Order: sequence, then C-alpha cells, then structure tokens
Amino acid sequence: MSLTERTKLRRLPKRGSHEPETIHAILDAGFLAHVGFQVNGQPFVIPTLYGREQDMLYLHGSAASRMLGELETGMPACVTVTLVDGLVLARSAFHHSMNYRSVVAFGIARKINEPEHKTRALRIISEHVIAGRWNDVRGPTEKELKATSVIEFSIDEASAKVRQGPPLDDEEDYSLPVWAGVVPIRLQMTTPIPDSRLPEGIDVPKYVRAEDSSAL
Amino acid sequence: MSLTERTKLRRLPKRGSHEPETIHAILDAGFLAHVGFQVNGQPFVIPTLYGREQDMLYLHGSAASRMLGELETGMPACVTVTLVDGLVLARSAFHHSMNYRSVVAFGIARKINEPEHKTRALRIISEHVIAGRWNDVRGPTEKELKATSVIEFSIDEASAKVRQGPPLDDEEDYSLPVWAGVVPIRLQMTTPIPDSRLPEGIDVPKYVRAEDSSAL
Repeated sequence: MSLTERTKLRRLPKRGSHEPETIHAILDAGFLAHVGFQVNGQPFVIPTLYGREQDMLYLHGSAASRMLGELETGMPACVTVTLVDGLVLARSAFHHSMNYRSVVAFGIARKINEPEHKTRALRIISEHVIAGRWNDVRGPTEKELKATSVIEFSIDEASAKVRQGPPLDDEEDYSLPVWAGVVPIRLQMTTPIPDSRLPEGIDVPKYVRAEDSSAL
Repeated sequence: MSLTERTKLRRLPKRGSHEPETIHAILDAGFLAHVGFQVNGQPFVIPTLYGREQDMLYLHGSAASRMLGELETGMPACVTVTLVDGLVLARSAFHHSMNYRSVVAFGIARKINEPEHKTRALRIISEHVIAGRWNDVRGPTEKELKATSVIEFSIDEASAKVRQGPPLDDEEDYSLPVWAGVVPIRLQMTTPIPDSRLPEGIDVPKYVRAEDSSAL
C-alpha cells in the first residue's frame, strides 16, 4: 500500500491511520462493504459482502451483476467499510459526533476466471462472514460457479479513521445542565430462525449462536 | 424522482422498488449513508450521517471536509443507505444470502449558505439521528455555523432493494442434514456511558434509553 493525495488525511489527522494493522483489523471486524465506481461520470455506491486476504478483498455476486461487470473491466474503484460504535452526545449541537471505525481503500479490481481460484475466493468470503459455515454446506457446482462472478480487489492505498471516547465540549459548556456521553451501538445477532423445512434433530450450529457478536 | 438506465433494476427486479414510500421508509430507518463522488476519475466512498426531508437529503461536516468541498461544486453523486437485517444460511454455499434493505439515490448536491437554512438543515440531521436531542442542547453559534459545511442533496432518481425471508434452496438440497435459516442482525443501542464531567442529578434522556432500537 502506498500513500498519495487520494488517501492523505486532511481532516483531523489524529483520527486517521495508514497502519496496515489498523486497516486490516477494521476490514476483518466488518463484513459489509460499500463499493464505489463510476459509469460515464456517474458515481455508483453498492453494498456487498466481502472477504479479505492480506491486501486483497474478494467480492462476489451474480454473473449478471452490473457492479461486478463494471469492476471487472479494471476501472479504479473505492471500497469503504464502516463500523458504527456509538453516538457521541455533547452539550452543544456542534460537538455531537459518532464513534466509528472506517477504512477507505482504493484499488483496481480483476475478474477471477479459474474455477479453483474462484472457489477459494468464495470460501474466503464465506468464512469472513460466518467462520465455520463453508465446511457444513454443499459446495458450488460447476454450473453455480459459472453463474457467479468473483473479483479480487487489490488495495493499492487505504486509510483508516477511528473516533472513540467521550464528547469533547467547549470548556464553558461543561456546566450546562445537559446529559452528555456516549450511546454505544453494536450490531447484534439475535435468535436464529430455523427454516420451516428443516428436518427434526438438526441443531443450530455454534457459529450462529455467538453470544457476543460485538465483533460484527 | 424519475427512472432511467441508472436506476433500472437489472438483477432480481422482484427485490427492487422505485416506490417513494419504500425508499423514504428505508432512508428514515437508517442514519448512516455512504456517499460516492469522483475526483479526476477516482471514485470516493465516504460514510456520513444524514437527515431527510421529502426528496432532499442533508449532509454536514467540517468546512474543511474534502467530501463536502467536492460535492458542493455540484457534481453528480450517489448516496447509498444499507440496513442489514440478517444472514441467510442455505444448504448450499451458492444460495447463501443476506436480508437487507438498501436505497441507492442519485442526484446533485448544493451548498447551503444562508445561516437560517443551514441551522434548519442541521436540526433535521440531528433529529433524524436522535429525535428529541436538538432542543436539549446549546444551538450553533455564528462561528460554529461558519466552521460547518451543510449541503442538500436532491434525489433525482432512486431505487430500493429489499430481501427478506428464509433461504431458497434447490429442491434436492432440502434433505441435506445441514442447519438452514436466518440469523437476524440488528443495530442495538446499549447502556449509555455518561461523560465523566457530567454533574450529579442529570438523568439519561428518554431518547437514548430506547429499549427496542431495531428502527436503527
């Protein structure tokens, strides 16, 4: 990963980082990316699941997907992952904020054609979203692989932004009789809903019974 | 809102909608948007809070923000809001999916200069994120307003996508001894953390004590 004007942190550089460890940790904690690309000068932002391996992100979808069809032409793209950790309530409207971790990554996408490579990438995405699932399910057939587009997005440059902690108010506002603090927010997995056609005697697997899914 | 090639639903049109009611409901249920724009052919995707009023989205940030600086030049932009509702676990890798609601909106942004209009837009954003908060806090001063950029993004076209319900497996896979179903996911507000400098006797306001924050 390199550093140019694209990823230079202009605002509040203390919140920013170019450390690969920080960037990888945020990418590993999330599972939903927003992918940006442009078609004839019109920007598009599309949500999608992803997997990561070093500085490579894997994305997949239907072979008919517009996003993947555009990306695989090798155009510049941007992949952003945002984790919301809390609302920051200050004494003044101005100092309200959000606790979050985000990564903005720039790079180029490439289509994966080779079936084994494709299957490997699909496994990485699946394991990223629900570790342990892949080995439990029927793997993709040749026909299914053909109906699936998989791309690898190589991160050329990325920056992370993290805001944590309490509100920071103007000194004279601390005496105002206004509640201030942080309202933590987390993504929580709740009780799994078995499919109506599930045969008797099949237990809910451990990987969807996570008690603390704050890692999401 | 109009309908052109940009928002034509190509994939799984049954999951898609151009109904303003559906689009508005999703935009109102979320609070975090991912905004796409391009600079010299490089797409950027930046997360930000927002507020909505009819087909207008309001965004704000520091007057030094790169995103707002670019958007206020009136370039085409894309604002995407995604709500993750669950992981859909099928019997085959291929039929795994995600339950979600998303809106992809296209339009042009315009800078708001007039202080009263700016304050009104900030109030709409604030009330969108935490209804009831604005009246409790110190409002923006003239200096703070100057340090804040506010833009209005007029939605010209938008499409919604919604996936709900159980996995849809191939008929022959239903007999596989594999757990299948939906793992619901929701954003949850947890116990508020009072600021360490909060005076005694100030209660946590009702609007951050929401028991069921599934609306997030």
